[in-house]
Amino acid sequence: MKTSIATVSINGSLKEKINAIANAGFDGVEIFENDFLTNNLSPKEVKNIVKDNGLAITLFQPFRDFEGMPDKHRIRAFDRAKRKFDIMGELETELILICSNTSNISLGGVDRAAADFFELGEIAKDRSIKVGYEALAWGKYVNDHRDAWEIVRRTNHDNIGIILDSFHTLSRNIDLNSISSIPKEKIFIVQLADAPLHDMDLLYWSRHFRNMPGQGDLPISKFMNSLNSTGYNGYLSLEIFNDHYRSGPRNLIAKDGKRSLTSLIYKKNIEKTEKNEIDRIEFIEFATDKNNLKDLQTLFKSLGFTEIGKHKTRSINLFVFDQVKFIINYENHNLVKDGSKAGPFPYAYGVKIQDINALFEKAKLLDIDFINKENENSLSMDVIKHIDGLIYIIDKNNYEIWKKDFQFKLSDQTNDFYLKIDHIAKTLRADEMPSALLSYSTLFNFKKSPIVDIIDPHGITKSQVIENETKTFRMTMNGADNHKTVAGQFLENKQGSGIQHIALKTKNLIDLVEILKTKGQNFLEISNNYYDDIEARFGLNYNFCKKLKELNILYDEDGHGSFLQIYTHVFNDTFFFEFVERIDDYQGYGANNALFRIAAQKHFKQLN
Amino acid sequence: MKTSIATVSINGSLKEKINAIANAGFDGVEIFENDFLTNNLSPKEVKNIVKDNGLAITLFQPFRDFEGMPDKHRIRAFDRAKRKFDIMGELETELILICSNTSNISLGGVDRAAADFFELGEIAKDRSIKVGYEALAWGKYVNDHRDAWEIVRRTNHDNIGIILDSFHTLSRNIDLNSISSIPKEKIFIVQLADAPLHDMDLLYWSRHFRNMPGQGDLPISKFMNSLNSTGYNGYLSLEIFNDHYRSGPRNLIAKDGKRSLTSLIYKKNIEKTEKNEIDRIEFIEFATDKNNLKDLQTLFKSLGFTEIGKHKTRSINLFVFDQVKFIINYENHNLVKDGSKAGPFPYAYGVKIQDINALFEKAKLLDIDFINKENENSLSMDVIKHIDGLIYIIDKNNYEIWKKDFQFKLSDQTNDFYLKIDHIAKTLRADEMPSALLSYSTLFNFKKSPIVDIIDPHGITKSQVIENETKTFRMTMNGADNHKTVAGQFLENKQGSGIQHIALKTKNLIDLVEILKTKGQNFLEISNNYYDDIEARFGLNYNFCKKLKELNILYDEDGHGSFLQIYTHVFNDTFFFEFVERIDDYQGYGANNALFRIAAQKHFKQLN
Repeated sequence: MKTSIATVSINGSLKEKINAIANAGFDGVEIFENDFLTNNLSPKEVKNIVKDNGLAITLFQPFRDFEGMPDKHRIRAFDRAKRKFDIMGELETELILICSNTSNISLGGVDRAAADFFELGEIAKDRSIKVGYEALAWGKYVNDHRDAWEIVRRTNHDNIGIILDSFHTLSRNIDLNSISSIPKEKIFIVQLADAPLHDMDLLYWSRHFRNMPGQGDLPISKFMNSLNSTGYNGYLSLEIFNDHYRSGPRNLIAKDGKRSLTSLIYKKNIEKTEKNEIDRIEFIEFATDKNNLKDLQTLFKSLGFTEIGKHKTRSINLFVFDQVKFIINYENHNLVKDGSKAGPFPYAYGVKIQDINALFEKAKLLDIDFINKENENSLSMDVIKHIDGLIYIIDKNNYEIWKKDFQFKLSDQTNDFYLKIDHIAKTLRADEMPSALLSYSTLFNFKKSPIVDIIDPHGITKSQVIENETKTFRMTMNGADNHKTVAGQFLENKQGSGIQHIALKTKNLIDLVEILKTKGQNFLEISNNYYDDIEARFGLNYNFCKKLKELNILYDEDGHGSFLQIYTHVFNDTFFFEFVERIDDYQGYGANNALFRIAAQKHFKQLN
Repeated sequence: MKTSIATVSINGSLKEKINAIANAGFDGVEIFENDFLTNNLSPKEVKNIVKDNGLAITLFQPFRDFEGMPDKHRIRAFDRAKRKFDIMGELETELILICSNTSNISLGGVDRAAADFFELGEIAKDRSIKVGYEALAWGKYVNDHRDAWEIVRRTNHDNIGIILDSFHTLSRNIDLNSISSIPKEKIFIVQLADAPLHDMDLLYWSRHFRNMPGQGDLPISKFMNSLNSTGYNGYLSLEIFNDHYRSGPRNLIAKDGKRSLTSLIYKKNIEKTEKNEIDRIEFIEFATDKNNLKDLQTLFKSLGFTEIGKHKTRSINLFVFDQVKFIINYENHNLVKDGSKAGPFPYAYGVKIQDINALFEKAKLLDIDFINKENENSLSMDVIKHIDGLIYIIDKNNYEIWKKDFQFKLSDQTNDFYLKIDHIAKTLRADEMPSALLSYSTLFNFKKSPIVDIIDPHGITKSQVIENETKTFRMTMNGADNHKTVAGQFLENKQGSGIQHIALKTKNLIDLVEILKTKGQNFLEISNNYYDDIEARFGLNYNFCKKLKELNILYDEDGHGSFLQIYTHVFNDTFFFEFVERIDDYQGYGANNALFRIAAQKHFKQLN
């Protein structure tokens, strides 16, 4: 299947839009009429620009309020259509979209609409134009693709077909099996859009919240399965109305769109569940210059880590605590920016994966940079360099990396903490989230949670969880929309997005905290009012709650189990650590406690 | 009635919120529980801060999921309530809000709920605490204040009453007469919030879109009429959940809130329609330094204006075209900022009003600065100095201003243009719109239209019309949300909000344009594609449309009439003029054409 996108989906002048669409690798472009009308270019000039960019014009759209008009309005509708056909002739565009009538003066009736379309089909035929009819979800009489198809079927004219749009179908929850019975040659084009689930007026939802397939909550794959069953092999074309896309980075948005379509087409092609699981987050790399090395070493020690070895040839030290590996890279490389603020921070992480070649192929398809270990980088591992910094990839079948590159002596110390990496918390600008989400979820088999609002005293931070099915990879993405929130201050201090905190999981948090305190580790102090509240709210045992309060451990419950969590203070004005204990089968991330953590961080900062 | 606001309505730490609320002049504050819980202050410390700020704590809220709980959950709910009563004792707060249960495990039944409340009432009585029950619009069994009232009525306990919230009642369209039959002593407090009309899930709408009474579309005055009929004389308390307030300017938002309540209370007090009409926009003042005076004079001349006189003592020149007066103020005053970019721009306008004393009184009540003409200012007129720059106020009964201050000779030239000021178009940041709207609509009797989206090639501009009943004052407010749109570029170039364009109305636009062209005035060139489209869309006469195209006049129709409009090029990278003709009774502002105007402006800028 070929890919296309409507000009309305991105911002800029018509010329800028077409350039961005071509650069992103689409095969074709839908010309949204207002983009043409507001333009000073003649139809011929537009045609040439599109051609010069190697694109096809897949569709001219939309034509509104055509079918079922009474009397003189009907005559004018046909006149309007002929005028648009003239322009299409000059644009050398074959297909026009007519969306179902929303006018209050229009008349219903399937046969009346079919008669209108047959008459139009005859006019179109003479000009080699094809007309696609689309059911708008808020059309006056036709708001369901099944009704649109019935009209097209009765019209029974070679130049009249149907246009399917995933948003209009899925937003109304229309039975997808009804797509399978449409002959593929009568489907003139397919438009795709996803959207986050909001229970709101369909028109408002559609005009402001649409996004790329995979970024929202609509069951696009099911829609695709039904479409694929027809044998349809034409264009998949994005038509996205989104407030943020109207001002966001044009080229990035276009590339995201292409990536989302590639992913859908790829899914169809492989026709099976791929096995590309992440086994675990293998390590986290911290970057620093030499001056700050000692502070970082001290920090890791107070977190219970032991420095067990070094890279054989590079300035990289290895720290271990149970199953968790941290490395400090203090080579004078370009990871550390000039200026003291850029100083030490978690910079990258490595994941252990089942089949590196499959991932490599997929990254290529998705236009995601994958750097072979043969190329220069401090660790001899393959690297994905796209989503938000580096991700090292370690092949399950080639797991000799540590022995090969590092000289180390395993600690013979044992304990009961079973420390593992629970999750990584990344912070980025709220408007960068959809793009990051798409990269992660198309490359790996990640599921995403709905976005929740985290209340900061100075704004809202959007938070979304992505994790794989086996929960061996978990990440929270936190999107800041102003610089006054804790998330926003991180972006300002770090001068960009990155890992804001790392959560480590243990089977015995209370003991661990008590030991770390003896090692000099301090933790974030939580308001006494919080503990009075949770004791009553969860009906906690008095002594247990007293202990939590004494240690500053936060508490949560879900339907599966309970959760303990504690935070370190912020290091270098940017990152911090969390220790958690998941009791029974607690699934969440303590989102209910985030506002207490944030308030405590702000309070601590004010005092210090 | 006294005024109060919930801490959740503005941002900051609890201390910062209380300060801002006191500064805005409220009498009391609702403590939103999370603001208390996330805080390190003890209840006693909070109490003292509130008292020191001269405020009362009007309410502690919310307490969730109390009534109708089964078995052990019921016991825990009572335990939780007692704990909160303890805290209220220390806070010295009398009233707590219990909102209707949303828990899936809760049980229905009016008598069961009443029994729960009676038992709680007995506990509350011992501690001199009052419990107010509020129907959440999305409560499981109780989502209507009539049902909440029935429970309170059956509870029949002095310490149990009802809390009304305008959002919960109005969002569900509940019959307002049902409020009138509640005895005023059983209404423990009244919460107020408005909201723009969106057809969406009530909870989502409530949590993100609430705003101050008068800023939204809910019929708050009707709600107030019903409330007033009960004789209720307690607190009016704002409870606003709004995404923008969570990061916006705290003090300004608090003052807006106070102003909105003052306006409601004022309406109740005067109990009659006030007569405070604006007769017309009397003049527009342009500010410039001497260097740019000549350019501005040339511009006005090419717009058809005649320089007819000067101020007797100041460096102010007077220009007239029919009923429109422009003045240029080129004194070396503080209106013109340093730097060439700050140069000439429309700076202020004067309105002729029916009763200046009534306006003066109202402004005082609303905390809007009103400067007496006795104080220093270039024109001997009273001035409102608040909303967005200056508004000169000219009393109808004291309309000798021009003769007194100016030396001029009326032009004896006559023509058929009947030029008047149609409207002023102000541009401001999108997040400043609600505040500006509130100031205008509380001070004057203005109506507002719903906000519409204007599509710019690089973003969305929000546009809203405010006008008085007689349409003698019309203004469009355009809110920019990024710096790349035409509106946003204006804000950047002018370094702040202001008048971006002035629309002048004539009875004969085509002739006027032809004459102005001979005077050297150029107009914004509109895309040919636009004219092809409107000819077909409106079924326009070929020659008429050809004329519009030749002159670059835009066309629109509504149900009442038709509209012609034309734009000058942008002057000084900031402002421009529009000439319009309203044929028959056209009501709008050509919003459909805004995207063509904007695209043409961007195109012109790119070329030049």
